Amino acid sequence: MKKNSNTTKPSASTLAYNNLHAISREITHIESTSHLLDWDQETYMPPGAAAHRAEQLEALAGIAHQKKVGSSFKNALEKLISVKSGTLKAKDLPTRQQAAVRLWRKDFLREKCLPQSFTEKWAKLTSTAINAWKKAKTDNNFKLFLPLLTELVDLARKKADYLTYKNHPYDALMDLYEPELTVEKVTPLFTQLRKQIVPLLKSIKAAGPINDAFLNGTWSHELQLEFSKKILTNIGYDLQYGRIDLSSHPFCSGMHPTDTRVTTRFHPTNLISCVSTLLHEAGHALYSMGIPKEEHGSPLGEAVSMALHESQSRFWEIFIGQGRPFWSHYLPKLKATFPGKFDKVTLEQFYKAINKVTPSLIRVDADEVTYPLHVILRYDLERKLIEGSMKTKEIPDAWNAGMKELLGITPPNDQQGCLQDIHWAMGGFGYFPTYALGTMYAAQLFSSFAKKHKGWDKRVANGELLFIKEWLNKEIHQHGRQFTSFELIKRVTGKEFDAGAFTSYLKEKYL
Amino acid sequence: MKKNSNTTKPSASTLAYNNLHAISREITHIESTSHLLDWDQETYMPPGAAAHRAEQLEALAGIAHQKKVGSSFKNALEKLISVKSGTLKAKDLPTRQQAAVRLWRKDFLREKCLPQSFTEKWAKLTSTAINAWKKAKTDNNFKLFLPLLTELVDLARKKADYLTYKNHPYDALMDLYEPELTVEKVTPLFTQLRKQIVPLLKSIKAAGPINDAFLNGTWSHELQLEFSKKILTNIGYDLQYGRIDLSSHPFCSGMHPTDTRVTTRFHPTNLISCVSTLLHEAGHALYSMGIPKEEHGSPLGEAVSMALHESQSRFWEIFIGQGRPFWSHYLPKLKATFPGKFDKVTLEQFYKAINKVTPSLIRVDADEVTYPLHVILRYDLERKLIEGSMKTKEIPDAWNAGMKELLGITPPNDQQGCLQDIHWAMGGFGYFPTYALGTMYAAQLFSSFAKKHKGWDKRVANGELLFIKEWLNKEIHQHGRQFTSFELIKRVTGKEFDAGAFTSYLKEKYL
Repeated sequence: MKKNSNTTKPSASTLAYNNLHAISREITHIESTSHLLDWDQETYMPPGAAAHRAEQLEALAGIAHQKKVGSSFKNALEKLISVKSGTLKAKDLPTRQQAAVRLWRKDFLREKCLPQSFTEKWAKLTSTAINAWKKAKTDNNFKLFLPLLTELVDLARKKADYLTYKNHPYDALMDLYEPELTVEKVTPLFTQLRKQIVPLLKSIKAAGPINDAFLNGTWSHELQLEFSKKILTNIGYDLQYGRIDLSSHPFCSGMHPTDTRVTTRFHPTNLISCVSTLLHEAGHALYSMGIPKEEHGSPLGEAVSMALHESQSRFWEIFIGQGRPFWSHYLPKLKATFPGKFDKVTLEQFYKAINKVTPSLIRVDADEVTYPLHVILRYDLERKLIEGSMKTKEIPDAWNAGMKELLGITPPNDQQGCLQDIHWAMGGFGYFPTYALGTMYAAQLFSSFAKKHKGWDKRVANGELLFIKEWLNKEIHQHGRQFTSFELIKRVTGKEFDAGAFTSYLKEKYL
Repeated sequence: MKKNSNTTKPSASTLAYNNLHAISREITHIESTSHLLDWDQETYMPPGAAAHRAEQLEALAGIAHQKKVGSSFKNALEKLISVKSGTLKAKDLPTRQQAAVRLWRKDFLREKCLPQSFTEKWAKLTSTAINAWKKAKTDNNFKLFLPLLTELVDLARKKADYLTYKNHPYDALMDLYEPELTVEKVTPLFTQLRKQIVPLLKSIKAAGPINDAFLNGTWSHELQLEFSKKILTNIGYDLQYGRIDLSSHPFCSGMHPTDTRVTTRFHPTNLISCVSTLLHEAGHALYSMGIPKEEHGSPLGEAVSMALHESQSRFWEIFIGQGRPFWSHYLPKLKATFPGKFDKVTLEQFYKAINKVTPSLIRVDADEVTYPLHVILRYDLERKLIEGSMKTKEIPDAWNAGMKELLGITPPNDQQGCLQDIHWAMGGFGYFPTYALGTMYAAQLFSSFAKKHKGWDKRVANGELLFIKEWLNKEIHQHGRQFTSFELIKRVTGKEFDAGAFTSYLKEKYL
């Protein structure tokens, strides 16, 4: 046997890196297993197994936490970087791996900074608060939730202190979902959005009603699923590595590039809901499936942030899935799937119907124009609560005033107003901004995509879709967490992220 | 508020017990989560996810092992019992808990006695051996498997040495699946079985052929499942805490009394296969569901052994599900489910057909008479291999001679002979005897059940089945691992376990 004289011994840095990666991969296996517990809970778990499932999840979360802050992890990390100062020791590592090492350190410090006693208090409070919120919502009685909400805000402020921040305590909370997001960055973005969307909404209203009645009806679940499945296959969602199930709240479970599942539900009357839900979830899935397998278990094997994840789902749901080219290809197929149901509907009528704008009371029902306004309202309230400039008892009035001002409608009650969803009860302060950011990221990415792919619309109209996934794979997915969202958007689009692409898109589409 | 003056402070022993139980429960959560990974792998996992799933399973197994031998567990155990000598320290604990403490110690010592290097070597060898066996079976070439089988036997002998034993190395291996089972106990049992069954088989053969042609055909999967589901509900399998899915190899996954799932498959032609498979798996499930929830995570929350588990499945599959009373109730329902298919078949004809005895080449296809003969053959060969009195290269001849002698048939080739199943390739020496023992336990339990429930047959014929489950709950399930199989059988039936009940049952039924 010939000896391979080119074989070089891996450097000490590489060995240390691989060692840390192996430790980290084991933790990721625990976490992806927790995701299977979650997936199963939402899909197939026997109803009576809920209490036991909660215990399993708690046990795995505890084990993952212990390993994340444990000495084995810390010692392996310390070989590569000074945990205390952040000075890199393994300077000969490739840039990508240097970035990974810094992120490992960041994650380690964050994991350590919340004391066990706080985490337990937080878990207990949110669990109680969720029950109180459910009761308060059912009874349409904000006062039942108020004391717990007050405690939650107090504890969220304390959480921000533990997490530390430079300028604003809300920064620390947003950073949990979108690294390096700050009030300083978000406020001007949202101000700009608001300035553009509020008058746009008035113009759209003035233009008169749009007919979407033909989308409503009773549609075969089987056919809806079959139709959606074909679309998902065409955009590159590979059922060899995924599956589609039903759940009451649709989600994507990205356990590994080779095991990323999506779920959907059927709207009681709307035909397009199932398709657009699955396009949204498949957008998340393609991100998870597009990250290099060999990086699994390292920061380079993870998605950048919630907002960037959301950008991938909104890219497909909105910018592709609500466009003319897409339906130019799929409308005839939809007609063939549901023969006789809307034979006379033209592409233009269909396009208008699926893009109908109507202010609604809740984000999850919102069209793409009014959607960000729901987020802006929540951002304003949360920021004030966390900085202490608003009291929880002022929420109902502030909510209703904000809805009136931004969307021109007033909730008939708190049930459909400030009690409408679970985010606060589960302690998710700082999460909401990512919903709007995701769409804005997607808009800027889409604008760049369209410029770089002249004739993209004709290709899509011909049913060619895989090249979109491949572009996203190359530009976004393959990098893992090497860059922040803002860095990545700039790399891909050649300019700093701002609200311009999104507002231009809306104005061009709706005016 | 009144103070409860009866509140007594828990004793130091109770506190120490609860502490150990909490540590042990966390380990059980890891293991039950592994079972979900397994269940998912056999039911819904995307096909391309297999490699990642293996990594998740390996990670969880590693974590469970570390915790089982870790200082936290050991220190908690040492407070209750001397790990070294086995002398109980917490003498004031209730008897049940004393038994649990002894079992915790036994498990701890076993977990520790296999060195990491051995476990890794074993895992690697079995993994290679499984692939070699698959190839050897496909190619019908025993020689391809021989070198690995030789290594496997050598390593299994080494394993027995690590595990330690008094008289026979095979005892150490059997003890892994059936605590305290020894060659000294099994050999006379199997000798007796053999003496009774071989002539019985000849008599049955001489009595002439039985018509079961009406069971064969193409049967709606949906209706088979619906029919079986009703039966499972009637015997007490609660779908609130379980579910029925399809898998290529049927199994029961007992993750917790509130989450115990079964799977089945459809035979290409035989109508009764799905029913009897589900009765078998539901028998396992009722055991798992019948163990007290509050004991979960302690030895009192576990099943006694593989063989006792098998006794529960065979109790339902054979002693209830192949009996006249059962089909007296269900045959009319079966006829109604498949109208016109066998209207003229009488209960007696049906009973004979589902109890038809025909020697076959493999255990999984065997009827209740020939089934133990397959086990006896394997037991003889394994025992000789492990004690060193037979060489692996002698297996094919010995197998064929044994088949001829016991079942009167000779396999046409090694593929259908000694290469027929995966047990040796996966290193499962010592497992096979539990298959026969389970049925023999079930026979003795059933005989006792019938004596204690005069008129049980009429109740079953009336469709009353829950009382059987309740009896098994009370007599078997509720005890967890407090007693060994032999102790438990004696407690329930009032006499030592022997082969008598089973051979009497067979003779009465078939002669």
